[in-house]
Amino acid sequence: MPRLEVRTYVFPTEDASRVLKAVSNVIELSDAKPTESRDPYESYSVVTWTFDSLKPLEKLRALLRSQRVLDAARTSIEKGLWSGGVKFYLNKQAAYVGKVSFCSMEFGESPMGAITVIVLLEGCDPLKFLNWLAPRTKQGVPVEEEDQPC
Amino acid sequence: MPRLEVRTYVFPTEDASRVLKAVSNVIELSDAKPTESRDPYESYSVVTWTFDSLKPLEKLRALLRSQRVLDAARTSIEKGLWSGGVKFYLNKQAAYVGKVSFCSMEFGESPMGAITVIVLLEGCDPLKFLNWLAPRTKQGVPVEEEDQPC
Repeated sequence: MPRLEVRTYVFPTEDASRVLKAVSNVIELSDAKPTESRDPYESYSVVTWTFDSLKPLEKLRALLRSQRVLDAARTSIEKGLWSGGVKFYLNKQAAYVGKVSFCSMEFGESPMGAITVIVLLEGCDPLKFLNWLAPRTKQGVPVEEEDQPC
Repeated sequence: MPRLEVRTYVFPTEDASRVLKAVSNVIELSDAKPTESRDPYESYSVVTWTFDSLKPLEKLRALLRSQRVLDAARTSIEKGLWSGGVKFYLNKQAAYVGKVSFCSMEFGESPMGAITVIVLLEGCDPLKFLNWLAPRTKQGVPVEEEDQPC
């Protein structure tokens, strides 16, 4: 069964409700409760949502199409693909204003840290998942698109 | 006459009042009104305070002593010294919790961007200013300390 983990950081000058809004703009969180952990030696906390399905990614899937960023998305997601799953990073500040923008790392590119998405594809074909989330396009139109992530 | 400029960024997931608190924890802003500018192509805004005196730095000067970080501070400030003034960066997240921590650049080290302090030392001796703000120490005790910044 595939599993999904979405994680981000909340820094002291941030407003936790705005961070929540940023994440929920790109991932369907519904009423999922996050866990929050904090290293006593660090000022930030780490907020993590876990899901037993890939359904929350349907929102991101739709945004990649409506914002016409499938090609860039596919390139970024492919980089994070391994046999057991995929890991990618979304710019948190862009997400706050409803835009999908990929980062190549957790820190540095997205001020205040990215939104990290980890997909564990146990029993699923990573290529099928990729072709579901961000299929190749031909003149802007998705080709070899999958209807189901797994 | 020396002048002082303090600048920082406010990102979409930040709370402007927390950013203000972070800056005012390390620099005496009193009731100074900042100017706020925003590049329409960027999601953040830049908030800048300008002063016609170096008095607002007295708070930072006291913190460097009470937090016993004069040596590290001097090393950081020296790097940003030029004939006409000095420029240095403070970690905004540390400032929010009342701690002084220097960064070597505006972005990357301090999540959400640093607090940038620019001191224009027109008609003042940069070394005198340095010895006022962060004098050398001997076994933790300031030596060759100046009473006035200019």
